Amino acid sequence: MTDLIKGNAVIGQSGGPTAVINQSLVGIVETLKSCRKIPKILGANHGVDGIVNNKFFDLKKLKKAELERLALSPAAALGSSRTKPTPEFCKKIFASLEANDVRYFFYIGGNDSADTCRIVNEMANESGYELRCFHVPKTIDNDLRVTDHTPGYGSAAKFVASAFAGEDRDNASLPGVKISVVMGRDAGWLTAASVLGKIDNTCGPHLVYVPEVAFDEKKFVEDVAKTYKKYGRCLVAVSEGIKNKKGTPMAVALCEKMGKEIERDSHGNAQLSGSGMLGDMLSELVKAKAPRKLGVKSLRVRADTYGYLQRSFAGYASEVDQYEARMCGKTAAELAMSGNLDGSVVMKRAKTKKYKVTFERAELAQVARVTKELPRSFVNKAGNGITKSYVNYALPLVGKLPTLGKLF
Amino acid sequence: MTDLIKGNAVIGQSGGPTAVINQSLVGIVETLKSCRKIPKILGANHGVDGIVNNKFFDLKKLKKAELERLALSPAAALGSSRTKPTPEFCKKIFASLEANDVRYFFYIGGNDSADTCRIVNEMANESGYELRCFHVPKTIDNDLRVTDHTPGYGSAAKFVASAFAGEDRDNASLPGVKISVVMGRDAGWLTAASVLGKIDNTCGPHLVYVPEVAFDEKKFVEDVAKTYKKYGRCLVAVSEGIKNKKGTPMAVALCEKMGKEIERDSHGNAQLSGSGMLGDMLSELVKAKAPRKLGVKSLRVRADTYGYLQRSFAGYASEVDQYEARMCGKTAAELAMSGNLDGSVVMKRAKTKKYKVTFERAELAQVARVTKELPRSFVNKAGNGITKSYVNYALPLVGKLPTLGKLF
Repeated sequence: MTDLIKGNAVIGQSGGPTAVINQSLVGIVETLKSCRKIPKILGANHGVDGIVNNKFFDLKKLKKAELERLALSPAAALGSSRTKPTPEFCKKIFASLEANDVRYFFYIGGNDSADTCRIVNEMANESGYELRCFHVPKTIDNDLRVTDHTPGYGSAAKFVASAFAGEDRDNASLPGVKISVVMGRDAGWLTAASVLGKIDNTCGPHLVYVPEVAFDEKKFVEDVAKTYKKYGRCLVAVSEGIKNKKGTPMAVALCEKMGKEIERDSHGNAQLSGSGMLGDMLSELVKAKAPRKLGVKSLRVRADTYGYLQRSFAGYASEVDQYEARMCGKTAAELAMSGNLDGSVVMKRAKTKKYKVTFERAELAQVARVTKELPRSFVNKAGNGITKSYVNYALPLVGKLPTLGKLF
Repeated sequence: MTDLIKGNAVIGQSGGPTAVINQSLVGIVETLKSCRKIPKILGANHGVDGIVNNKFFDLKKLKKAELERLALSPAAALGSSRTKPTPEFCKKIFASLEANDVRYFFYIGGNDSADTCRIVNEMANESGYELRCFHVPKTIDNDLRVTDHTPGYGSAAKFVASAFAGEDRDNASLPGVKISVVMGRDAGWLTAASVLGKIDNTCGPHLVYVPEVAFDEKKFVEDVAKTYKKYGRCLVAVSEGIKNKKGTPMAVALCEKMGKEIERDSHGNAQLSGSGMLGDMLSELVKAKAPRKLGVKSLRVRADTYGYLQRSFAGYASEVDQYEARMCGKTAAELAMSGNLDGSVVMKRAKTKKYKVTFERAELAQVARVTKELPRSFVNKAGNGITKSYVNYALPLVGKLPTLGKLF
């Protein structure tokens, strides 16, 4: 460890929480803890906002048992942040890091967070200030580049898979049309997980709609009617991020249709979660149009929007995901202590039959900003279902799913 | 077993499914299975509809492993029914039971199902046809009389408790106002479970609204603003069944306000679940009124409606609940074989320190129709929170909850 530079460490968490984001935090802390050249391990309260406002937790004093309890807790234990740093803001971040004698900066987050790391790292380089900057991936959306998958995805996928496995039995039990809306602004990864718990091919979700395929209202109603005719029921998984042909999110398009204003975050993204609007509107659409196609007077149509539970539900994380998130944090800390390195931790999947990943370093710029979509080969030809290739990809990440039985 | 009458058995499941309704089914089947005086054990496909249409599953042929898989599956494995039998329809039920040489009739359901049992039992008595009629309780709503609690409640309560435990960490992580709507048409039992996973008293849900206390829009906004001022965030648990002073469900009152028609089921009940409307409307209310009270420009307000997941989520049932549901089925079968008895199975809680229940028989008429509300002692004086007495009552039913940690 010849290159080990003396100085403090700062860890921050950013963006939408996951069930295992604190595993990564704990992975970093336990790796740095015994290092005498790192006197303080500071946890930034609410990400970059905490750094700029000098609000830190002393993480070195936490005992093993406390760390383990945090690791099992969903959502960002340090507090998260939605702030998208401008270059001006990044200067403030860098100034605070310098003032606090910080030489190790870890930011756990999605692609926006990787970008923040990249900018701060460039500033440090320009100033000739030695700073190890590491991005640790986290997102239930699984939409980061380079890495095979992201910590947080496996647990959210396990939740969604178990939810639909139960929904299918519920829908068989009391038949009707059930539409359930799944998180995922730009990519259909989480929505695809809806198929992982199917007992057999007659089980729902019978239809799956993801943002990668243009959503057509007419085709949707036809699909539902056709499925209902075949099975006497229909369970639909819809991504909150489905878009029409023009690329406008359906939630936005429908808000406009209704003359409603949609809320936007500081990144300019329209609010898709935290509202049941999209589900309710699709439900209205089916109620209005499908009965005539089926020659019935009315249909029992219900919609649910899974909402925050997908990222925050306590006590049901994927064990694989927990382990990998911990390892991503550990790897970032080890790399930062191993020499003059910066980067993002990525998982590479071995091409072996048995599932295995290695934890490696990628350049920050490779991960930042651009999102990774669901490959077209994971969506069926009709654009309303998920293929076996996806199931093979995803099953190892969610771990054990409940084994259900059925009479019909 | 001198009174053991020879004849077939019919089992039906009715109403909204639960995570453990099939445990009761399996409890009945495994108890009757070895009895040679009961040649056939028939499972009615979709409750009374299956009986009337002569659609049955042969349950005697199911192997132990198949039964156990069914027991772990949420929702009614036989198919459920929303049909509320008229006296005319009950005649048809009775005629089918007679035609199929049925002497043992088990109906797993809520208070409407107990009432169906009662009517069919009276018809049998009037005709001098020997028929053992047993109602086996089931409902996530926990609103049946006589029994200490209902099978299905513990698992739904565990789901809600874990959901809010995670929601609280999520809300601390990214502060704002979060409103989550919980199932429960007439009683606040399930909404009350939102408090069971709290780490300490600063944790949410900070406010809990149940149907037993008249909901006042103005008071609600004041409560939210006050909490937000104190904690910089606010997590709210709301029952879908909250009513205004006049006793009109808020969902209905708000539909009327918006000039929308609300869907009703065959029992005349307004559709409260399967729509995000109530949550979205409460969210709008807070967004519109709370900022001024707080002297801020705008507030981050989100709403989720937990929906069907509360009753159907796979793989996260309460072990206590699973055991008790199985025992309720077993007890009904044993009682039916023990003599000329009819009734409903109820659980009596021992007044010991250690949680213990016994399984007993109650008269059908005692359980039928009327619902059991949350006692006023389980709600705080202000009508916006849940007391320690409720926590003591409910914790043994949900079993082990995740132990979370926090830094703030």
